[in-house]
Amino acid sequence: MSVEPSGNPRLNSPSMKPFNEHLQERIETTRSHLCVGLDVNPEKLNISNPSLDDLKKHTKIIIEATRDLTLAYKPNLGFFERWGADGFQWLKEALDQIGAGPIVIGDAKRGDIGNTARQYAHALFDHFNFDAITVNPYMGRESIEPFIERPDKGAFVLCRTSNPSAGELQNQTVGKPLYQRVAEIAVEINTRSNVGLVVGATVPAEIGAVRAIAPGIPFLIPGIGAQGGDLETSMRSGNLNGAAIINLSRAVIFAGDHSSDAIRNAAQSYADEMKKYSPFINQD
Amino acid sequence: MSVEPSGNPRLNSPSMKPFNEHLQERIETTRSHLCVGLDVNPEKLNISNPSLDDLKKHTKIIIEATRDLTLAYKPNLGFFERWGADGFQWLKEALDQIGAGPIVIGDAKRGDIGNTARQYAHALFDHFNFDAITVNPYMGRESIEPFIERPDKGAFVLCRTSNPSAGELQNQTVGKPLYQRVAEIAVEINTRSNVGLVVGATVPAEIGAVRAIAPGIPFLIPGIGAQGGDLETSMRSGNLNGAAIINLSRAVIFAGDHSSDAIRNAAQSYADEMKKYSPFINQD
Repeated sequence: MSVEPSGNPRLNSPSMKPFNEHLQERIETTRSHLCVGLDVNPEKLNISNPSLDDLKKHTKIIIEATRDLTLAYKPNLGFFERWGADGFQWLKEALDQIGAGPIVIGDAKRGDIGNTARQYAHALFDHFNFDAITVNPYMGRESIEPFIERPDKGAFVLCRTSNPSAGELQNQTVGKPLYQRVAEIAVEINTRSNVGLVVGATVPAEIGAVRAIAPGIPFLIPGIGAQGGDLETSMRSGNLNGAAIINLSRAVIFAGDHSSDAIRNAAQSYADEMKKYSPFINQD
Repeated sequence: MSVEPSGNPRLNSPSMKPFNEHLQERIETTRSHLCVGLDVNPEKLNISNPSLDDLKKHTKIIIEATRDLTLAYKPNLGFFERWGADGFQWLKEALDQIGAGPIVIGDAKRGDIGNTARQYAHALFDHFNFDAITVNPYMGRESIEPFIERPDKGAFVLCRTSNPSAGELQNQTVGKPLYQRVAEIAVEINTRSNVGLVVGATVPAEIGAVRAIAPGIPFLIPGIGAQGGDLETSMRSGNLNGAAIINLSRAVIFAGDHSSDAIRNAAQSYADEMKKYSPFINQD
């Protein structure tokens, strides 16, 4: 395929290691489990009638204020797509600013038949050059496989999500709860060490249940902060026999008066709290 | 919210009727059940190293050749996103060319927590001005609701999809198969007459099972053509106590030598075949 439009100039991850190994190393070198979710919602800015430029400006402040404290960034594609082509331009600018180093997870939650999933993989890995993405398992493993063909690119499969109505399907019992069947599938397809799982902090007991099924597989844990999940339990269960990335969005990117200092202080405080419970970071 | 970027100039659907009623009327006035899926894959074009302009040109040919034969178009967002911001520009140009009249379904298969689903709803309904979209139910009804707040905008919930590994989760038994639980949820949330279901033509017996649970709800049926689904059964079961939209992608948009004539002939032939089995179109 030589027809790709020019990709994002963000460098390829310097390591060609399998994604899950690269992630583990980055936790140790950055001494951080913190993922900053870039859900830059115009309704949350303290500006009346914010323009796209206002959103870009706030995104720059967030990245500048947190870059040395974070393991990963997680732009949520919905917030960019809202603005159409201009929003995708904004996303590329944000990715440029993040640059090489931090792991960047495209929170896309895509899920489609193989032929279409392949197009999304082009968009997310070739065009935007994300290191990993989130993917929805409802259409079966065929819809996940195009995202895990390259060992250095990772896919976090939605398993047990953090939102109020998540259990409606995910906790239906199919012998076991459905989300546990998803965890089993993730283990089955993790032949290249690049499959992870999304497990919400709002259901801490279920983090342990998933960990028992999927030892060694990294967890992306959203739901701390605005959604009320428990940080200590998420860190302890999530990092037992595997690594956990803890995502904070609103509680960091719209902290306090939205200033650079307020954002940095929030990120620092969450990162420090996580460090206390990490088996991978020396407690000095 | 007054910060939306300028929307697609495609006119709003002339009817402010609930989406499902509007759809039923359009089947009668267009005398067609045909939905043309715009999955314009560069690998499928008979051109070596096709550019985005080549893809745009082919999209124009498809729309010109089929516009008077189709009930609906279904652009699949993956094929546009592959090209980033330029791809979204291409999508807007295609929507402009389609113009008012045909129903346009954004095949996005999004599914995220309420706050993010709302961003996607802005993108798909305000920015791109789709009449309806496809949505993934894995995160529960909260992730569907932002898409069905406006009666004139519809949402087709993935129920039993047409791809080979679809049954892996969808046919897991939760008392009944999981996809039937999804159909029940769709009925429960269809208070504004704008919820539909995606049911694949590759599982014709299951179209009947879903219809028994969800009378009156429109079905979007993919999987005819390249995926090998059965047209007659899909039309007969899908249009019993409700309406069916039958999607054709590859078999129409890359028909024969890819010429305007070949595309039109394929669309005409499928539309005529559907007409034979339609209870909504006079057989004259």
